[in-house]
Amino acid sequence: MTCPLCSRSGENLLWEDAHCRVIRVDDADHPGFCRVIWHAHVAEMTDLTAAQRAHLLQVVFATEAALRALMQPLKINLASFGNMVPHLHWHVIPRFADDRHFPQPVWGTPQRDGRRHEPPDDEVLAARIADMMMA
Amino acid sequence: MTCPLCSRSGENLLWEDAHCRVIRVDDADHPGFCRVIWHAHVAEMTDLTAAQRAHLLQVVFATEAALRALMQPLKINLASFGNMVPHLHWHVIPRFADDRHFPQPVWGTPQRDGRRHEPPDDEVLAARIADMMMA
Repeated sequence: MTCPLCSRSGENLLWEDAHCRVIRVDDADHPGFCRVIWHAHVAEMTDLTAAQRAHLLQVVFATEAALRALMQPLKINLASFGNMVPHLHWHVIPRFADDRHFPQPVWGTPQRDGRRHEPPDDEVLAARIADMMMA
Repeated sequence: MTCPLCSRSGENLLWEDAHCRVIRVDDADHPGFCRVIWHAHVAEMTDLTAAQRAHLLQVVFATEAALRALMQPLKINLASFGNMVPHLHWHVIPRFADDRHFPQPVWGTPQRDGRRHEPPDDEVLAARIADMMMA
């Protein structure tokens, strides 16, 4: 079976280097939702070396910091499951008290129709992630 | 309002140091579920220093490694939300193809009654986490 994260089809790329990339997730209920994907097909964080883990997480936290700066969410949600696609990736999701699922995870039961908070422009977000990686 | 993670009431402690602790979560559907909790009342990973983040994640990955070694789950799920309790904590969850929610996150729609895989004894798990912290 072809892994969709290996094939990189239809991704909205915000940032990448030799090891991993950040893409924008198309989720109408949760604008600003980003995914950080390790390029190689590896399943678990503890399958990476400590240095690789640290690098991937530096990118996750650069993305978190960029989203906090640009959207001022009430909370950031971070998750790495890989149950459907066992290829390491992190969900980085800005959450708001009036979003569709709060305080449930975005995979939980909807709580209301939900307000869709204005996300940053892709170019602005991409530039901020790059800045945070230099910080 | 009192923060339940500050008050530490009713926790089944497996490991701790000056900065954070690992507890066993009482979830009948997901044996082996652990939580790694930063002692101080801080909301986001990017509110910690880089050194603090690295330390907390070292404990998360020691817990992941211990659970993998002792339970051989199909996947490990990692998540930090804090929507209900904005005090930094990480969920570390061993997942199996026949568990109640797989391949959904444990916060999603149940898929079946689910088989409950035998978890390690608390003392065995605690010792293995301590070993992994020394590795």
